Amino acid sequence: MLSIRGKIKMTFDFSDKVKNLKPSAIREIFKSLTDPSVISFAAGNPSPLSFPVEKLRLLADEIFETEPSKALQYGITEGYLPLRNQVSERLKSKFSIGKDFDEVIITSGGQQGIDLACKVLCNEGDTVICENPSFIGALNAFRSYGVNLKGIDAGIDGINPEELEKVLKEDKRVKLIYLIPTFQNPSGITTSLEKRKAILEIAKKYGVVILEDNPYGELRFAGRDVPTIKSMDDCGIVLYCGSFSKILSSGMRVGFVCGHSELIKKIVVVKQTNDVHTNQFFQMLCSKFIDRYGLDEHIKSINELYGRNCACMLSSLDENIPSSVSYTRPEGGLFLWVTLPRSTDMDDFIKRTVDAKIAVVPGSTFMPDPSKKTSSFRLNYSMPTEEEIKKGISILAQVIKSAGIN
Amino acid sequence: MLSIRGKIKMTFDFSDKVKNLKPSAIREIFKSLTDPSVISFAAGNPSPLSFPVEKLRLLADEIFETEPSKALQYGITEGYLPLRNQVSERLKSKFSIGKDFDEVIITSGGQQGIDLACKVLCNEGDTVICENPSFIGALNAFRSYGVNLKGIDAGIDGINPEELEKVLKEDKRVKLIYLIPTFQNPSGITTSLEKRKAILEIAKKYGVVILEDNPYGELRFAGRDVPTIKSMDDCGIVLYCGSFSKILSSGMRVGFVCGHSELIKKIVVVKQTNDVHTNQFFQMLCSKFIDRYGLDEHIKSINELYGRNCACMLSSLDENIPSSVSYTRPEGGLFLWVTLPRSTDMDDFIKRTVDAKIAVVPGSTFMPDPSKKTSSFRLNYSMPTEEEIKKGISILAQVIKSAGIN
Repeated sequence: MLSIRGKIKMTFDFSDKVKNLKPSAIREIFKSLTDPSVISFAAGNPSPLSFPVEKLRLLADEIFETEPSKALQYGITEGYLPLRNQVSERLKSKFSIGKDFDEVIITSGGQQGIDLACKVLCNEGDTVICENPSFIGALNAFRSYGVNLKGIDAGIDGINPEELEKVLKEDKRVKLIYLIPTFQNPSGITTSLEKRKAILEIAKKYGVVILEDNPYGELRFAGRDVPTIKSMDDCGIVLYCGSFSKILSSGMRVGFVCGHSELIKKIVVVKQTNDVHTNQFFQMLCSKFIDRYGLDEHIKSINELYGRNCACMLSSLDENIPSSVSYTRPEGGLFLWVTLPRSTDMDDFIKRTVDAKIAVVPGSTFMPDPSKKTSSFRLNYSMPTEEEIKKGISILAQVIKSAGIN
Repeated sequence: MLSIRGKIKMTFDFSDKVKNLKPSAIREIFKSLTDPSVISFAAGNPSPLSFPVEKLRLLADEIFETEPSKALQYGITEGYLPLRNQVSERLKSKFSIGKDFDEVIITSGGQQGIDLACKVLCNEGDTVICENPSFIGALNAFRSYGVNLKGIDAGIDGINPEELEKVLKEDKRVKLIYLIPTFQNPSGITTSLEKRKAILEIAKKYGVVILEDNPYGELRFAGRDVPTIKSMDDCGIVLYCGSFSKILSSGMRVGFVCGHSELIKKIVVVKQTNDVHTNQFFQMLCSKFIDRYGLDEHIKSINELYGRNCACMLSSLDENIPSSVSYTRPEGGLFLWVTLPRSTDMDDFIKRTVDAKIAVVPGSTFMPDPSKKTSSFRLNYSMPTEEEIKKGISILAQVIKSAGIN
């Protein structure tokens, strides 16, 4: 606080952990998206076509009719019990997730699960291992607790287990290994079963918790399911974050964490100080939806849509993009990851996409170490229509050409 | 992590800041309230009669009809813009809150505003000054960031400004002064205008932010409004937390923070890592409610109910309780605060209330320093009916008598 000519000018002394925290670059990109002529591949949103509006409307009205006081009153921090039970039951029967020592807590979106896991396990100055690249929302959550991020390059089938062990051997302050093994954000890749097994064994050897973030796992439109790391967890070392954001509604902010009861108990105590509990009405709405309709049919229809869009984007890329440019071929999720030749001037390239009214998210956004050089960017295929995808990728091809890439 | 006879037993190494954090004692009391014959004065809940169910039902259906994609999709972290504008406008016109330098963010309940304020301003080992007693949810939020709590005894009209200055002079690590100046939780008292002015001047002198928590401010059923500290803030040193929990619905988790734009900007960045944004549907529902019906009429009806209940509780106490027992006479809010003779064995007394099937919250729950001796307890009058109040207070009088208090 400064006093200037009798007038006080406030300057705030922020805590060390948040002092240098910047808003997600994606948000800034979105601010430039008010121009309706821009074709955006920058989103992380589910398609609005994926929201089961009429069913939710009907069920919401039923809640107002039959249980309004429960839906509008304070609930318990652990979450609405019927929903917790449904989530546990579904994780178990469909994905073999959940041993006797595990419990489920309902969170305010998957994001809150990530945030609370870090708060509960990490002191300032501790280390969190992440994939390189990784989800910006998680990276910023970790940064907001003053931890150091250590990125490990993710190849086409996940991080290298030997590289993971090397980091764990050298850095005794690693408290968390954060992974999105299935349809990773931003890369769209899936970690192989072999690597999942190896990573789990190493985590056990060093006694470090794995935070398995799986918001996209059910969005598979090609290939075969790979077991989650959590499904192989026989001692409670894996904390599993899931979400309804990509399969029912993102705006409602309902997710969940499944993990060892000791860990969940502590997360409950901390969540209580954070937002008391997650929106009760929408917890009941999720529960009613599962009860009445189940999730499987609805998810199937989402996957048909995303499968079509992804195939359209891949064939447009195949047709238009020179062979010096590579890209992942996801079997599910929302994203694919394009890598330009290593020598590309990315600032110039991104400027060219903006001028051409194409929005993509530059790869540097997703780097645990933002100074790390990358010539990649992320494309989203859940939001645009097939027509927009075709048009947008053809413009992108022209931008690539204009940047001198052949 | 321990290996016992080949089986791994997980033991988690929690972060220093959350290691000793205990769940709110109130939650534990609630677990004993499954017995329907218990009369509970332990709640912090609004009355279910205060929820405008039919109006919300109508408006919710309108949202599903007209703007489902907006309501179910990701929103921006700052909050739904029409609601932010309505909150700003109402704070300004009705309570003279908000200068040019101020902004509003929508939070997931008032609790999240308190949590983020502490995260943004406090390092571990810093000090937060609180009233003695104070709101357990806030105290635990502060504790979860590893700060030290310094309680200042609150008299019948708030903390003593000289005492505040003394603490600020001695402790250079004070980063926040947390106050609930109006209808305080748990005590029901209101800080006088004179003290508010003095506290603000001292905060400015020492350059320490005041966190003014005002979830009950509109729940006045007697006496005259006292200006908030924020309304007198001419430099941005006061961060003001408000909530819709006690005037529309607590289960929906919608609150707000009004403060200096520099502080709000940082809170936005940190909220983004916490839960991305607050439930979008209910933000729109609040906005529509304000737009269609306004809040004033509805709040008036709540205050008639709480005024009746409080009067009933006070007259029951006046009739039944010996003069060695004192209690506050609130002009609004949800709570009053009963103080037994200093020599009372509180563990024994609370045990007697449990045996008599009366639930109250022991005063120690609300102490920044839980080892501080107190012979007080909190009574809630928003949840019980007048009949329950009369019956419960008469039982409480018997308990007091049985404990040898005359």
